[in-house]
Amino acid sequence: MGDIFLYEIMGTGLLTLLGCGVVANVVLPKTKGNNGGWLLINFGWGLAVFAGVYAAWKTGAHLNPAVTFGILASGADFYDGALENIPVNFGNTIGYLAAEMIGAFLGAVIMWLAYKQHFDQDAEPATKLAVFSTGPEIRNPLWNTLTEIVGTFVLVFVILMFGHSPAGLGPLAVALLVVGIGASLGGPTGYAINPARDLGPRIAHALLPIPGKGGSDWGYSWVPIVGPILGGVLAGVLYMGAFA
Amino acid sequence: MGDIFLYEIMGTGLLTLLGCGVVANVVLPKTKGNNGGWLLINFGWGLAVFAGVYAAWKTGAHLNPAVTFGILASGADFYDGALENIPVNFGNTIGYLAAEMIGAFLGAVIMWLAYKQHFDQDAEPATKLAVFSTGPEIRNPLWNTLTEIVGTFVLVFVILMFGHSPAGLGPLAVALLVVGIGASLGGPTGYAINPARDLGPRIAHALLPIPGKGGSDWGYSWVPIVGPILGGVLAGVLYMGAFA
Amino acid sequence: MGDIFLYEIMGTGLLTLLGCGVVANVVLPKTKGNNGGWLLINFGWGLAVFAGVYAAWKTGAHLNPAVTFGILASGADFYDGALENIPVNFGNTIGYLAAEMIGAFLGAVIMWLAYKQHFDQDAEPATKLAVFSTGPEIRNPLWNTLTEIVGTFVLVFVILMFGHSPAGLGPLAVALLVVGIGASLGGPTGYAINPARDLGPRIAHALLPIPGKGGSDWGYSWVPIVGPILGGVLAGVLYMGAFA
Amino acid sequence: MGDIFLYEIMGTGLLTLLGCGVVANVVLPKTKGNNGGWLLINFGWGLAVFAGVYAAWKTGAHLNPAVTFGILASGADFYDGALENIPVNFGNTIGYLAAEMIGAFLGAVIMWLAYKQHFDQDAEPATKLAVFSTGPEIRNPLWNTLTEIVGTFVLVFVILMFGHSPAGLGPLAVALLVVGIGASLGGPTGYAINPARDLGPRIAHALLPIPGKGGSDWGYSWVPIVGPILGGVLAGVLYMGAFA
Repeated sequence: MGDIFLYEIMGTGLLTLLGCGVVANVVLPKTKGNNGGWLLINFGWGLAVFAGVYAAWKTGAHLNPAVTFGILASGADFYDGALENIPVNFGNTIGYLAAEMIGAFLGAVIMWLAYKQHFDQDAEPATKLAVFSTGPEIRNPLWNTLTEIVGTFVLVFVILMFGHSPAGLGPLAVALLVVGIGASLGGPTGYAINPARDLGPRIAHALLPIPGKGGSDWGYSWVPIVGPILGGVLAGVLYMGAFA
Repeated sequence: MGDIFLYEIMGTGLLTLLGCGVVANVVLPKTKGNNGGWLLINFGWGLAVFAGVYAAWKTGAHLNPAVTFGILASGADFYDGALENIPVNFGNTIGYLAAEMIGAFLGAVIMWLAYKQHFDQDAEPATKLAVFSTGPEIRNPLWNTLTEIVGTFVLVFVILMFGHSPAGLGPLAVALLVVGIGASLGGPTGYAINPARDLGPRIAHALLPIPGKGGSDWGYSWVPIVGPILGGVLAGVLYMGAFA
Repeated sequence: MGDIFLYEIMGTGLLTLLGCGVVANVVLPKTKGNNGGWLLINFGWGLAVFAGVYAAWKTGAHLNPAVTFGILASGADFYDGALENIPVNFGNTIGYLAAEMIGAFLGAVIMWLAYKQHFDQDAEPATKLAVFSTGPEIRNPLWNTLTEIVGTFVLVFVILMFGHSPAGLGPLAVALLVVGIGASLGGPTGYAINPARDLGPRIAHALLPIPGKGGSDWGYSWVPIVGPILGGVLAGVLYMGAFA
Repeated sequence: MGDIFLYEIMGTGLLTLLGCGVVANVVLPKTKGNNGGWLLINFGWGLAVFAGVYAAWKTGAHLNPAVTFGILASGADFYDGALENIPVNFGNTIGYLAAEMIGAFLGAVIMWLAYKQHFDQDAEPATKLAVFSTGPEIRNPLWNTLTEIVGTFVLVFVILMFGHSPAGLGPLAVALLVVGIGASLGGPTGYAINPARDLGPRIAHALLPIPGKGGSDWGYSWVPIVGPILGGVLAGVLYMGAFA
């Protein structure tokens, strides 16, 4: 349990530090990567996962409640860990979820410190929020939720299939999968595909003293929680039912 | 046979879900990846193949009638599968082809759901069709077919050569090959290099209730079928004749 | 000897087919990748090498006289091949060089067929030549040669060091190295770093019936031959003297 | 000790040759990669590390005083080398640091030769300096140092965690990590994350006869030294205390 906390906080912290960081680089004023394009954001997020997975390898590197719930839904007896099997039970599940949320919050805070002077520049409140949390281009809770379901289904289903192939790419495989999902399915909602990745930084946004930051868009905040959990569970169930 | 259906439908479904998805992200209005560039499209398609190959690893991950016909033309006795050899015979060949078509159709439908609100925006009919199916920049059936032959030849020939090298990159090797073919040979026709990838989504385009969608350009639809099949067969024959 | 011809022609052919192809896609009129940027060109060339190395794995995948000369200069007794050692001798050296030139020429011809309709559009003669062969941004034979020496030195030296590391990335390692050299050292001359890659397509340019093509810039043609050979030999000598 | 000098000079030399090279390609006048974007710079630097790590594999490929200090701070008894263990002691530490500085200086000089004609064009002095050394977008020593601490912490911590995962990506893993750090945390200061990478080329800038070059901004030069060393030490201490 201590390991789950230690490794998943570290891994999810690296995830949002680097993931929110690339958005800061692209959208905040006076950065070197300003207006650097969608592919830059996709690689930034993919490689954020890459770093996070290396850091949390020992506990299976969930980094994402949708993965935790997806494995739960697959009916597995163990959350696979690198060094020892971690039994699927209520306590460990809560441990993963809590660590993911804490890590995602802390990573966003450190990202804010790294970009502090750029957050202090004048910019639209929506731009500053976009560094932390996702938001849809065309707001509609049902369609936005559906898009998040589809993206997260792909993430969790393909991760569950990794074990069927001998190619030992490890963290690289997850990273590239995330690059691909961002490129292909990130267009409408910005691909949260991870409740912790969205909610943790949103809480950070609400708490941090950012000049001219505006609201944290709590009205939308349930979409990147509900959509990814449904998508992850759907992937786990389909995997268990037909592909295990 | 059941495995062929299950895995190849899933894999080809992921292929067009993510592959058509990246085009939607780049060309449809109000997306986050709008106007994101050709390299973004190339990586999106390459990583769509990456995800699809992981999903269909067990049955050899054809995902493409040009690959199925190419292996047939190479004179192999078996469609290589991960867990057991799948004999090359009429029934299995039909199984692969049917699964590829069904998967490609279903993936495009789910892509449409993920981008539903963006398809409902005003856009040129040709733009909406381009998300689903390929079209040439300079229309000429013979030259367009030749371009598709060349691109698919490279795809199938290099895949057949993978077995000669010890580098166990698995799905990553195919993904990068597709990125490269798109970058280098996709300029004239948009690199179908896969009859199912083009025809399945084209049927989806014809059937789905997309506002202002225009025709499905059936006059061109045979080019991305005939070209890739010829290219795949050519690769299989050359491989068998000189490189096996 | 037959193997050297067969595999190196095929591999070098894929190299210029895909490598010149990405330039065609970026610079010729009415292509889908038009104006797609330098990173697209770098990935296109890197993955051209990727495909070519898979095709020519059996004979060591030189694809480049600078590599052939670099191994010669390193004092090795064998041109390493995948299946059997290929002795370094006059005949085999000539075999590699001839196969590289023939392959590079043929690949460029097939690239031209794939982009035929785009070559038939109006464009500057220099643009049409740039698809086939390199040219400097600021013409000066000595400095241009020096740039080619540096780029090719990096290519051949790092390839010779691959054997010292256990990471079995095979063709991917060469591909990424070429992406990196293009990104970093391709700015002044367009990184020929391979005499066959430049001369073979230049001959194709001279012979093919391309409307409005202009001259083949033979005055510059010795630079991408002499520079890469010197860079490759320098790398071989340094490797042998201090790192073998 | 001789090995440390030989391999680390070669590796760090390739690092700044290719790394400063991609900046030259993007910012200097009349280059082919001019204005090529932040992702091009990120891949250029990442693949510069890739080449450098292959060259210096035998001695552990530090290439960076922050890595050398980070390993020191982790309390390890040995600087891991490929072929033999290298004891952590005063002499070897000085050897690494000296070799890193010498290599970084020499690589920048050869980069300058490769881009000589482009440095001789008219350009802002700040642009010419930016090819060699980093500079902040918003100058503030404390915040700039903090950003460098965060970026280097990620670099050294994740490198130390590589050994916990079985994925044998070797040089590729470091390369991709550097691409990711550049994309995500390079926005404010240009990610030195390596004192030698910044100071070595800055000395080269000061000494080389570059027309219209302006000053070498020595007032900022301590930031990319102090920040990375602190970040590396912090990573080593955290690793030793909780993750070893």
